[in-house]
Amino acid sequence: MSAARITDTAFDNQLRQKAQLVNSTLQRLLTQQTEIDNNLKKAIEYTLQGKGKRIRAAVLLWCCELVSGKINHGAEVAAAAIEMVHTYSLVHDDLPAMDDDDLRRGLPTCHKAFDEATAILTGDALLTLAFEVLANRVIEPAIAVRLISQLAMAAGAAGMIAGQAADLRAENGQGTQELLEYIHTNKTAKIFRCAAAMGAICGQATEAELECLCEYGLKIGLAFQIADDILDVSASADHLGKTAGKDARAAKCTYPSVLGLEKSRQLQQKLTNEAVKLLELFGGKAQALQNLATALLQRTR
Amino acid sequence: MSAARITDTAFDNQLRQKAQLVNSTLQRLLTQQTEIDNNLKKAIEYTLQGKGKRIRAAVLLWCCELVSGKINHGAEVAAAAIEMVHTYSLVHDDLPAMDDDDLRRGLPTCHKAFDEATAILTGDALLTLAFEVLANRVIEPAIAVRLISQLAMAAGAAGMIAGQAADLRAENGQGTQELLEYIHTNKTAKIFRCAAAMGAICGQATEAELECLCEYGLKIGLAFQIADDILDVSASADHLGKTAGKDARAAKCTYPSVLGLEKSRQLQQKLTNEAVKLLELFGGKAQALQNLATALLQRTR
Repeated sequence: MSAARITDTAFDNQLRQKAQLVNSTLQRLLTQQTEIDNNLKKAIEYTLQGKGKRIRAAVLLWCCELVSGKINHGAEVAAAAIEMVHTYSLVHDDLPAMDDDDLRRGLPTCHKAFDEATAILTGDALLTLAFEVLANRVIEPAIAVRLISQLAMAAGAAGMIAGQAADLRAENGQGTQELLEYIHTNKTAKIFRCAAAMGAICGQATEAELECLCEYGLKIGLAFQIADDILDVSASADHLGKTAGKDARAAKCTYPSVLGLEKSRQLQQKLTNEAVKLLELFGGKAQALQNLATALLQRTR
Repeated sequence: MSAARITDTAFDNQLRQKAQLVNSTLQRLLTQQTEIDNNLKKAIEYTLQGKGKRIRAAVLLWCCELVSGKINHGAEVAAAAIEMVHTYSLVHDDLPAMDDDDLRRGLPTCHKAFDEATAILTGDALLTLAFEVLANRVIEPAIAVRLISQLAMAAGAAGMIAGQAADLRAENGQGTQELLEYIHTNKTAKIFRCAAAMGAICGQATEAELECLCEYGLKIGLAFQIADDILDVSASADHLGKTAGKDARAAKCTYPSVLGLEKSRQLQQKLTNEAVKLLELFGGKAQALQNLATALLQRTR
């Protein structure tokens, strides 16, 4: 086994540990919701269950660790909150009136497993719960409002929702590189930037550290989305845990459809290099974030 | 014209003034959203436009005024935020998979005026924006997190969303008084209680004042919902600005269907009396909230 392969495995383990931390935090936060509607709780648990890679949460946790040397309680809650928002966005995106998808994380989508009304309400509940746990008064208020502000801006109509709206409008249309960048910056990259920002804020980063990590987040977010687009055209549903080839059939505005595969891979590499370069500010301390950027480049699902 | 009638008109004017304040705050907050997706902005403005009565906002503003003698900036923003959440809930409730309604506030519902995907995203955007404006750092963080926590709890899966989920499940079923109370407490009354709590928090109320106003809010919220149920069976769509007789057709669990009209009116009167009695804590200063409780009893739309 080569040295590089050993490193990969070590990184996979680190990522899995972060995912386990997020999963147990999600479980704990849900358990605290004693007055929650029981059917909604089942649907929420169903959508949050195991198979998510929790990459946004891992970015957040590593950024907090990088600037403060440890993961604090606020970062754990923030990591859970960002995964709630990510999951809500998947539940709503999968709805028949949106992307109309049957498969997610290897399981029937929420509206298939339950029904459409439950899926709408489950998404709403996850989004609301994300803000509730951030405002739970365990996190210092001055920190909490910054986290909530970052999350709301990244997820809102000037962020993720704007990207989703533009994505739907762009179906069956002529994609331009400008539109492509608008969609993917808003739909995906801003939440990665937000994850980095939230981690940095939890770790009480300096302004310079915060800015640098935000840039890093934005770049790996775009690189992540390019990988997603490439996988949609090159991998099977069984492998991805969601429907494959769907973007092409819907004539979505994706990197491969606008730039072609070769140029998409080049751009992905360029963004990864730039992301890694940004980490030089932290000397050798940013190994995990560096590994993450590289791993995203090589992702196969 | 009788004295009572003059008082009514004066109260109507006060309520209209509060609605105008909320409308201008909503407009100002939306104007500040310079990076918002343009199509979503149109849909958001469409759903927020004029005809809403803004009763939840008025409760909030009057509670702040009552405990602090004035309306502060935080209360203005909070009033706008609670109307955003209320409006989001209407947009999602009206969706085909939910209550499937064509008419709202005298206009085609959001998914009729735009399309279903836009309505889903518009609701999501309004909910997210409510938390964003509360965390905008203009409101003192210690106050802001309390407001966000109240709003998220009241609107979430242990509040409004739970009520909506139970409401949908109860369709065509056998309604019991217990189920009725669960649905309407969660679906409607908790947001009224939240409005009162947010106003009290903005005005830096004492714990005793806060508790009392929360109870007041819960009671007028239930009374408001009873009036809504009664109007659904007794008024026309033209008059209501939304489809009439719809609850009965869907065999919804409503006060008239479970208790009958006469007992519903009695309960409404009882809740109003209790709400007014709670205000004795404030001596003669709570005239506006007292008038509101009475006005809800007499509401015709």
